[in-house]
Amino acid sequence: MKKVILDLDTGIDDTLALSYILGSPDAELIGITGTYGNVVVEQGVSNDLNLLAMYHREDIPVFSGVPYPTGATSFQPEWFVYHGENGTGNITIPATATRKAEEKSAVDFIIESVREYGDDLVVVPTGASTTIAAVFEKAPDIIDKIHIVLMGGSLTQPGNCNPFQEANMGQDPIASNKMFATDADITMVGLDVTTQALMSREDTQKLRDTGTTSGKFLADMTDYYIGVSEKDEGALPNVCNLHDPLAAAVALDPTLVKTFPINIKVETEGVSVGRTIGDPSRLLSPVKNTKVALEVDTKRFTERFMERLLSLVTTIG
Amino acid sequence: MKKVILDLDTGIDDTLALSYILGSPDAELIGITGTYGNVVVEQGVSNDLNLLAMYHREDIPVFSGVPYPTGATSFQPEWFVYHGENGTGNITIPATATRKAEEKSAVDFIIESVREYGDDLVVVPTGASTTIAAVFEKAPDIIDKIHIVLMGGSLTQPGNCNPFQEANMGQDPIASNKMFATDADITMVGLDVTTQALMSREDTQKLRDTGTTSGKFLADMTDYYIGVSEKDEGALPNVCNLHDPLAAAVALDPTLVKTFPINIKVETEGVSVGRTIGDPSRLLSPVKNTKVALEVDTKRFTERFMERLLSLVTTIG
Repeated sequence: MKKVILDLDTGIDDTLALSYILGSPDAELIGITGTYGNVVVEQGVSNDLNLLAMYHREDIPVFSGVPYPTGATSFQPEWFVYHGENGTGNITIPATATRKAEEKSAVDFIIESVREYGDDLVVVPTGASTTIAAVFEKAPDIIDKIHIVLMGGSLTQPGNCNPFQEANMGQDPIASNKMFATDADITMVGLDVTTQALMSREDTQKLRDTGTTSGKFLADMTDYYIGVSEKDEGALPNVCNLHDPLAAAVALDPTLVKTFPINIKVETEGVSVGRTIGDPSRLLSPVKNTKVALEVDTKRFTERFMERLLSLVTTIG
Repeated sequence: MKKVILDLDTGIDDTLALSYILGSPDAELIGITGTYGNVVVEQGVSNDLNLLAMYHREDIPVFSGVPYPTGATSFQPEWFVYHGENGTGNITIPATATRKAEEKSAVDFIIESVREYGDDLVVVPTGASTTIAAVFEKAPDIIDKIHIVLMGGSLTQPGNCNPFQEANMGQDPIASNKMFATDADITMVGLDVTTQALMSREDTQKLRDTGTTSGKFLADMTDYYIGVSEKDEGALPNVCNLHDPLAAAVALDPTLVKTFPINIKVETEGVSVGRTIGDPSRLLSPVKNTKVALEVDTKRFTERFMERLLSLVTTIG
C-alpha cells in the first residue's frame, strides 16, 4: 500500500488521475495539493473538493498551493481550451463539497508528510512545479527523502506547446529547473510516454454504460477532451492522451515504464524556454537523479486504467 | 569478423576511428568513402589515402562521396578550427600515398557492397549524410539490407553547434532526415554518449611513448584537438571527445552501449534546424528503425580503444 499525495491542476486528465488513485487498492491518497496550470488554483481546489464529495471521500484533505509562477503576481490558464472553463470540460461535477480547503498550506502539508512517511510516500505533481520548488526551498532536509513521480516534460519528442516546451514545464520553468537541479528522486513521466497512452470514445462509453452518475460524468468530461484533442494538428481521431493518469499509475507501479537515468535541466530563457534536456554540466556525474520514462507498456496500463475506473464508478454509483 | 565501410570526413577523430578499426582484429575494413564536414571531400580523401599509406594498408580502396549539401554547389568547413586546416590538427601525416581515390563513386561502392555482403557489413558514417541519402535514392532496394552505425545527432543532450544542432546533422539536415525517414537499420551514436568518451594528454603520451612514427603522429594530432576542445565553454580541461571512435567501436561491439528504440526525424528548418528528435507521426508505430545510444560503458570502451591503438602503432612503427 503506497501513500500518495496528488499535486493537481484539476483539469480533465487530473480528474482521471484522481479517479485512478481512488480506484486503486494499492494506493492510500493522504491528501491533494492544488497547483495551477490547466486552471487557477482556486478552480482546481474547488474541483478537487467536489470530486472527493462525488466519490464520498471527504475524509481526504485538500490544500492550496502556490498560485502564481516564480516572480509573477497573477496567472491565467493558457491551455484552458483543453479542459473547459471549469476544468472538467464544462461538465458540472455531480456533487458539491460541504467543506473548504484546509488552512494549512500545500507546502507545509507536503513537507510534514515527507518527514512523517519517507519512503512510504510518493508525491505526484501534474501541473506547475511552483509548490514543489517552494517545498524544497523551505525544507531542504526533505530533498533526499522525497519521491516524486511527475507528469511533465519531454525528452525525446517535441513539446506540446511548441517544438520545445511541454505545458507543465512551461508554466514555471524556473521552479521546474530548481526542482530538477536538486538530488531529489524524480521520475519524469512526460510526452515521451503519455502521448502513447490513449483513451477513446469506446472507453468513455464503457464508463457511461455503467449507468452511474460518476461514470456518466467522467464519460461526458472525457468526451469533451477527446473532441478538443482530435482537432490538434497531426492528432489521431477519437482519442485523448492519458497524461496525468499514466504518472499516477507509474507512481504505484514503476514497472509500467522503462526509464533512462539522467540529470535534467529545464531551460529558463530563450526560444526553447521550458525544454527538458540533459544537463551537460552533470553529464559525467555518476549520480543521476531523474529517471525519464521512455517506453511504456500501454496495453497493461490502459487495461488497468479502465478496470480501476469501472470498478470505482460501479462502487460509487 | 565484421566487414566495415567507414564514411569519413577526416578529421582528427575520424583518423582515430580509422586507426581503431585498423587495430581491431574483429574488423575487415573493405573501403573508405569520403564525405565532407570537418573538411572538404578532397582533403578528407587525401588524408584517408595518406593515413592508409602510413598504416601500410594501400590495399584498402578509397572512394569520393557527394561533396556538397543538398541543393548547394559548394561547401566550406565551418568547424575546421577543431581539426586544423589540414584536418589532422595541422600535423602532417608521416606518409604520402602512391595512389589516388578510385574512379568508382562512394555511392556505387556502398550500394554494391551492401548488395554483396548484406548482414556481414556495417557502414559507419561520421560526417554529413549526403552520400548515404544519395545511396538510398539511387538504390531503394538496399534500404532494408543496410546496417548503419553513425556518429551524429543528440537526443537527450543539447547540440554542440548550438543548443539544438549536432555538427554532422547540421551539415545537411535534409539528407539526414531522408536517411532517418526510411526503414533502414540505424544505430545513432550521438552526443548523448560520445561526450562521455574521453581521451586525455596522458593517453596521447602513451602513444608517443611507443617511440613510433605513427604513435607520435596520433599523439601530436590529438593534442591539438585537446587544446582546442578544452577552450570550449564549460569544457573539461585536458580531454577531447572520442566521437567517431565510439561509433566505430559500437559498430563492432553493440554491447558497449545501451540503446533506445525510436523513430527519429531531423528538423530541416527553423531555429532548431538539424535537431534530432522523435518523430511524433511515427511515435505509435510498432516498428522503430533507429537505436539511439543513451548509455555507454566508457571504461570498457576507452581501455579497448587505447589497447587497439597502442597495438596498431607498435606493429606499424
